[in-house]
Formats: sequence, structure tokens, C-alpha cells
Amino acid sequence: MKIAIDAMGGDHAPEAIVKGASLAVDHYHDLELTLFGNREQINSYLDKHPRIHIHHTTEKVENTDEPSRVVRKKKDASMVLMAEAVKNEEADACISAGNTGALMSTGLFKVGRIKGIDRPALSPTLPTTDGKGFLLLDVGANVETKPNHLLQYAVMGSIYVENVRNINNPRVGLLNVGTEDQKGSDTVKEAFQLLQQAPINFVGNVEARDLLEGVADVVVTDGFSGNIALKSIEGTALTLFSIIKQSFMKNMKTKLAAAMVKSDLKGVKDQLDYSEYGGAGLFGLRAPVIKAHGSSNERAIFNAIKQTYHLVEADVVSLIEKEVKALQEREA
Amino acid sequence: MKIAIDAMGGDHAPEAIVKGASLAVDHYHDLELTLFGNREQINSYLDKHPRIHIHHTTEKVENTDEPSRVVRKKKDASMVLMAEAVKNEEADACISAGNTGALMSTGLFKVGRIKGIDRPALSPTLPTTDGKGFLLLDVGANVETKPNHLLQYAVMGSIYVENVRNINNPRVGLLNVGTEDQKGSDTVKEAFQLLQQAPINFVGNVEARDLLEGVADVVVTDGFSGNIALKSIEGTALTLFSIIKQSFMKNMKTKLAAAMVKSDLKGVKDQLDYSEYGGAGLFGLRAPVIKAHGSSNERAIFNAIKQTYHLVEADVVSLIEKEVKALQEREA
Repeated sequence: MKIAIDAMGGDHAPEAIVKGASLAVDHYHDLELTLFGNREQINSYLDKHPRIHIHHTTEKVENTDEPSRVVRKKKDASMVLMAEAVKNEEADACISAGNTGALMSTGLFKVGRIKGIDRPALSPTLPTTDGKGFLLLDVGANVETKPNHLLQYAVMGSIYVENVRNINNPRVGLLNVGTEDQKGSDTVKEAFQLLQQAPINFVGNVEARDLLEGVADVVVTDGFSGNIALKSIEGTALTLFSIIKQSFMKNMKTKLAAAMVKSDLKGVKDQLDYSEYGGAGLFGLRAPVIKAHGSSNERAIFNAIKQTYHLVEADVVSLIEKEVKALQEREA
Repeated sequence: MKIAIDAMGGDHAPEAIVKGASLAVDHYHDLELTLFGNREQINSYLDKHPRIHIHHTTEKVENTDEPSRVVRKKKDASMVLMAEAVKNEEADACISAGNTGALMSTGLFKVGRIKGIDRPALSPTLPTTDGKGFLLLDVGANVETKPNHLLQYAVMGSIYVENVRNINNPRVGLLNVGTEDQKGSDTVKEAFQLLQQAPINFVGNVEARDLLEGVADVVVTDGFSGNIALKSIEGTALTLFSIIKQSFMKNMKTKLAAAMVKSDLKGVKDQLDYSEYGGAGLFGLRAPVIKAHGSSNERAIFNAIKQTYHLVEADVVSLIEKEVKALQEREA
């Protein structure tokens, strides 16, 4: 299996990317990685390995780059060339921790959509208290969402969770403002009807309040609301941890108590660390394109590679293609 | 000043409502309260007071009642009669901790909209780390939102925060999937333009990640996304506190540490307790209608009454009426 990786994307690039890649080739003996980026910088962190190749690039995508212009304006950027390798079938999948919008746009234009999928969905797995996690899609690839897009997200999400995360008959929920059937905007109400008839385990509307408690394995929503949910959860967790940390630094007594529970609180933080579940998949493209978190360390990059490996191994793209075709035939 | 209160709404009704009312009449000597509900039940918690009246009702709205049918089907419910008292000018404002949807519907049909306001907005104040808090609107009164509605929310929110929460020249942010100007759906992009031209202190797009850090004093969004943001924040905070609590109960050492920082962690929880900021206002109606949190205790009810008192005192409804008229004249 061959995976292309943008070595220049993310807050800790290229170091975290190169080190994560080294962990991955040690773990999977049939895995070949190509790192796209500045050869000299990559080499300063790389222990030479026969299954890690370097594709030297002179440009890289910045976080300030306008996503829609990257493909045209930065033809030699590590991210763009990585996606091109997938397009040219030199790689089975690709991963970047760089500019999210640019990756979505590059994925869409270089790798292309699966026939029958209207819009790809950006799909991270978030933590739950039971440790199973849930897939949330879409979190911002598509902010003008139609009922049929939500149906496609549900089908793609189900296939991914069942085949890569090994959750049998995954429960699919529709994110809504209440759990009753008749809630939400017209788009959401219409999607509810479509989901009820779909070949998935639809459990109805779910509320944002219950997401971390594991109310569903796949949660479907429009890109705007999904982005708000994701960032509200992230922001609240970060803010809370920072307030708690402050309150532990107040005086000698609190510092002593903090020392006593340090490892336990670290455990709480780890329980909520979604980099353990890999990156966010850009589902609906003709090959796996994975967005690793911008702040990824080497372990997060390793996890994103693991996830990508399983995506390719399970041939999720073909499974989605097949299911979408079946959906279209049923409609016709 | 006269305020009508639904004594039968909320998880701790009527006890918390009656006790909160008693605190309020002790605090404000020109305040008269009428409690709507079962006289016998109310009396069992009430120390008779010359400025607390009881309006006996035989019915009450349940959480399972279909909101849109309450006004027609439960004419004698405490919530409906409380709103009717406002309509008949027997009270200046009203408060309920009951069924949110039913209160929105009752407020709309009984109290009615301010002329020129298309949709009322449900508007809670959420906590921030600096203790100032921010107003979020709408959190679900209106799930089909147009750019002009968002403009009206911004104007109403600014007036409330400036006049009731005493924040000078409040910063108004538009909740979006990124901070750059050109982000979001067409509706949000159009709202951005309207907000730039509005007579408010518009600070541009804000992300859900930064809400609790106090990135704005007023945050405007459609009712669907606002509901998702509110419930994601609530859910994450509750889940985190419950995991931390569990990790503190693990063994003797963690229990000892917990005892040492108990009051400090209580402080963290209090810092995030939004019942301190009162209830959620249903802005855009012809008199203040306040939704207290369903789980309100007597202190939360007292805070909701305080907030309502200040809303009436500052005559926020007239200020909104005036500003909406000015907006319309500018458009014409």
C-alpha cells in the first residue's frame, strides 16, 4: 500500500510528520510512504528507511492561502503534488495536517468526487465517555446542505464506521434542536424522512447535549452546524481545562492536590483526545483524503496514517460507490 | 412594577418558583408578583406576603405538550394565563421555567411581536472566563433564518446588553465557520453585509471555539446553529465535570485530593453557572417574556426575576421599537 503525505502541513511540520511516518512504516510492513516537501528539512528528522520516499517540493500551502486558489496558484505546493500523486494512481490515499479549506479544495479538484456523490463531507471522529467515539459529518466542507446530501453523509458515515472502526450496525443520528420527529428546519425534516427509508440503522434526531455521551455512532448534520458543534465542544473542553488548571495553581494546598491527581486528570484529558481516532476523512472522494489536526504531534500523525491504512485496506471507496449506485437505482 | 410568574413550570416547581419569588419581593420594594398555578401547592411553600398574589389555575403545560397547540388546547394553563395577564396589561412582564417551545408559542400569540420585528429570538446569556458573559441569539425560536432576522437580533441584543447588563458599546459578533469576512452560507454572508452597515459595534465573524473566552458581548446566529452551540457547550461542560468527578472517586488518594480542592472546583462550576445571568429573554415581543432554565432552583428564579425587573425598568421594549423604526426608515 502506498500513501502520500504532505510533510509541510501543520503546526509541527515537518518534524511531527516525519516522525509519525517512521512509526507507521515500523508498524505496517507492507506500507510505503512518500513525503512531499522540502528534502533538506525532511532529511534532518528522518532516519533513512527503504519504504519512506521523499518527493522534493519548493512550495507549500500556508494557512493564510485562499483555499479556492491553491490548486491554480500553487501548482508545486507539497499538498497539491501529494493529491496529484493520488490522481495519477501513484498513491492509494493522502494525508495533510495543513490548511483545511485548501485540502478540501485540492481533494475535490485533484482526486475528484465519487460518481453519484454531490458533496464530499469532512468527517472527524470525536470522543465519547464510553471510549467508542462518534463520527460527525459534515463539519464544514459544504455549508449549503440539501436533504439528499445528508442522506449521502449518513450512508458514507455508516460504511466507514462499520468497516474501519469495526462498530457493528452503527447507530446513525440526525443532529437536531430536539429529539422529537417533527423538529428542525424544512431541510432537516425532509432529511429525516429520507434517513428513515435508507439502508442504515437510523435512530432519529439527536441533540448536541448528548453527543459526548455516545448517543449515536454516526451523527449527520449540515456543514455549518457541524462546524459549530465541533468547535463548541473543542472550545468548551479547552476553556474548562484551562480554568481548572488555574484553580489548581492558586496556593500550596491546591498545588499539592494537583500533584496527587495529575495522572488521573491527564487520563481525563486523554479520554477526550480525539487525535487517538485519527484525522478527519474527506468522504465522497475517489480515494481517501485525510485531514490530520493542525496541532498534530507524531502520535497523531501515526494515528492518521493507521486510519488511512484501514480505509484503503477495507476499500471503503468501493463500498461507498456500490451503495450510492444502489440508492440511485432505488430512486429511479 | 408587576411581574406574572408561572408557578408550575420547571423541574422544581412550584417550590423553587415560590421561594425565588419571596427572595425577589424582599429585594425590590416596588415589585408585585402574581404566581399562576395551583393555590394549595403554592401556599404550602409561601410565607404570605402583601406583594405576592396567587392566581389559581387548574391546568399546567407539560414538557410533552405540543407547543403550537398549548394556546388553543390549554386555555387555563398557568403559563397561558400568565401571558394573558401581560396581554391585558395586568402585568409588565412574565417568567416561566416550563416547556420552552410552549412559552415561545404562547408569548408570540398572547403577547405578540413588536411592530417591524419579523421573528422573536430566544436569547440566553452564557458565561465567559472573564465573568462578563455573552448574549447568544437565537437559540431556537426560529430555525428558518433570513439575513434581515440576524440584523434584528443584533440590534435587539445590543440594546439589551447595553441597557440591562450595562456593557458599554457592546461588541456584536456573527457566529461563523471561520473569522474571515467571506465565510459561511449565502444567508450568513448577506447578514455580514447588513451588520457592517448597522448602528452597532460589529466586530465581524466569530468562531464557536472562542465563545467562552469572551470574543464578543452579543453573538448572533440562526436558531438552529445557536441551539447546537448552546447545547454543545452545556453538554461538554456537564460531561467533563462528570468524568472529573469520577476520576476523583477512584481511590483514597484521589478522594483526599478532591476534598482539598472541593471549594476551588465548586468555584470553577459557579464561574460557568449561567443561571447567575438570569433566564433567556424572548426578545422582539411587546413585553419581556423570560424563559428560566428548566432546572432552576430558587436562586436561579430570583436571578430571572432580577433580570426581568431590569428589562422593564430600562424599558428595553420601547428602545427596540424605536431602533427598529429607525432601521426601517433608513431602508426606505
